[in-house]
Amino acid sequence: MVVLMSPTAVLPDSMVPVAPAAEPLAFSRVFARLALHQSALDTFLREQLAEFEPEIRDLAAYALDASGKRLRPALVFLSGWKGSGAPSAELVRVAAVVEMVHLATLVHDDIMDGAEVRRNRPTVARRYGSAAAVLLGDALFAHALHLTTQYPTTGVCAAVSVAMRRVCAGEIVQTLRRGSLRVDRADYSRIVDLKTAELFRVSCQLGAEVAGQPAGFVAAAGRFGRHLGIGYQIYDDLVDFFGEETRIGKTLGTDLTSGKLTLPLLVLRERLEPVDQERLAEELDGRRSPDLATRLEQMRRLGVFARVAGEVAVELADARAALSPWQQLAPAPRLGELADLLEAQVSALAQSS
Amino acid sequence: MVVLMSPTAVLPDSMVPVAPAAEPLAFSRVFARLALHQSALDTFLREQLAEFEPEIRDLAAYALDASGKRLRPALVFLSGWKGSGAPSAELVRVAAVVEMVHLATLVHDDIMDGAEVRRNRPTVARRYGSAAAVLLGDALFAHALHLTTQYPTTGVCAAVSVAMRRVCAGEIVQTLRRGSLRVDRADYSRIVDLKTAELFRVSCQLGAEVAGQPAGFVAAAGRFGRHLGIGYQIYDDLVDFFGEETRIGKTLGTDLTSGKLTLPLLVLRERLEPVDQERLAEELDGRRSPDLATRLEQMRRLGVFARVAGEVAVELADARAALSPWQQLAPAPRLGELADLLEAQVSALAQSS
Repeated sequence: MVVLMSPTAVLPDSMVPVAPAAEPLAFSRVFARLALHQSALDTFLREQLAEFEPEIRDLAAYALDASGKRLRPALVFLSGWKGSGAPSAELVRVAAVVEMVHLATLVHDDIMDGAEVRRNRPTVARRYGSAAAVLLGDALFAHALHLTTQYPTTGVCAAVSVAMRRVCAGEIVQTLRRGSLRVDRADYSRIVDLKTAELFRVSCQLGAEVAGQPAGFVAAAGRFGRHLGIGYQIYDDLVDFFGEETRIGKTLGTDLTSGKLTLPLLVLRERLEPVDQERLAEELDGRRSPDLATRLEQMRRLGVFARVAGEVAVELADARAALSPWQQLAPAPRLGELADLLEAQVSALAQSS
Repeated sequence: MVVLMSPTAVLPDSMVPVAPAAEPLAFSRVFARLALHQSALDTFLREQLAEFEPEIRDLAAYALDASGKRLRPALVFLSGWKGSGAPSAELVRVAAVVEMVHLATLVHDDIMDGAEVRRNRPTVARRYGSAAAVLLGDALFAHALHLTTQYPTTGVCAAVSVAMRRVCAGEIVQTLRRGSLRVDRADYSRIVDLKTAELFRVSCQLGAEVAGQPAGFVAAAGRFGRHLGIGYQIYDDLVDFFGEETRIGKTLGTDLTSGKLTLPLLVLRERLEPVDQERLAEELDGRRSPDLATRLEQMRRLGVFARVAGEVAVELADARAALSPWQQLAPAPRLGELADLLEAQVSALAQSS
């Protein structure tokens, strides 16, 4: 349970925190509360291995490793919050479903990105080959959806399968736009809404629903999750430029290098003089090799960080607004703390940037 | 509806028939009966495009193209057979689900195999890139499972999601064993059972179930589908050596070249002298370049075709036996004709080999 005791515990899977020392108690407070929940999830996921065909159990175990931050399960648990005691089997199952869908997308992402390492281990694709990784991702998707059929009605399966299709659609759009300059803010918003916010949204919605919360709160939790997810993705895109390489454990500027027009780059483009806009365009579509140092200097000079951080704040405000009529329900203040945490992360990043 | 009028219509997607002229009426008879069914399926699949996110509709349309043989839908329709009139919406939906799952596996298979052409068009991977193809396959899986949630209970989703996981498991085992000599008949049977027979089985089972057939027949149809699927896969592996290249539209001997120990190669290995066994082993694991002409000559001399064809016959006998107590039900004789068709295909192949 190292992950739960660590100040990094709240962070999403793709990164390690930036300047967590600024708010260490906040992180551990939220996640310490989930100790029994996350341990029930670990047990459940381990038990699921027996459901996989014997020949692929080792691969499934490798992909389901417990070293991730389990952020989406945390959304499920907090949305269905009834106290720090052991969670219901129904809630644990939903948490497992969203985590398994997420892990399947990571297995597939790592193939497409040619990534060699994730969480300090070779990726599934690196370890077992791309072909096995494609198929293992499929098997994880299939099993996640199979778990949804253990609820009395088809509602959970319907919600998860649509969410999964939307996540894939978002990633397809992003993939097809790589290296293209015809990406505007509307495109960026749409991609983020599909590829990231959708699974956050459905995690919150289903957590509340399975816990038997009133329909109004179920919808509110979904809206909260969506805005938190958008805010988180924008933050993650900021980290790609303003994080500290040693801390986030990955190379900075990969979005520029891979031609992904994220919000920091969109804002930078808007603020550059035409001649520099053209240079940035050439870097994005591969005509010129990226000059990260210059782009970072320009971002700092032109106030890109503050502008983008402002958009995270807008999303967090929307997220909190969704919960405000429901403060009397146990989950609402718990979820609100997640918004506080993301806000603290952005502040910490501002200090280090 | 060219596909339905053609003698090739019964053939599975990966091939075009060998010597169909031997039994042209049989093919057209079975598939002509399904004209309204297949046309309802085409309409339904076209309508589904509107359910996909607008940005990925073109890709989904490309992958859902109607030029395939729709063999698995035929299994659904014949298992739920109530006459040649328009099928129920429930039956059409199940047919769409199994076809969509199958098409998704083809999209992923073509990435892994580096295939450039399928059905005389560039593969999805070739046309849109591997990354988009991985994601589109995922989106098709997701949407197929979403369709299963439109039944009153979770049963259809549970059956399809397990089948999908088993298909992937079978393909993973096959992938990991490529180029390995440690594959025996038991391994081969297991791979075939998972990667091919499972979707045949679930197509028949769900077709019968959704049509409201008695539970005994539902189980029998599932057993029929499984044995037909095993028989079909063995036949397909025979075609890889004994088909006519110009007719099947693909290179012969690809299983040898890619190190896949299929049944014809397993039988050949058993019957070779040790020195030739060693040579075959070297060809399979890549130490020596494959000598297809010699292997074919050996297969002919050592009676490999007859031995392997005998195993197809065993599966077809098991398939027919499953149906024999249910001949009074409309679907049973219709399904039996599919076994007859496969038998005729094998005979035609014997003549040309």
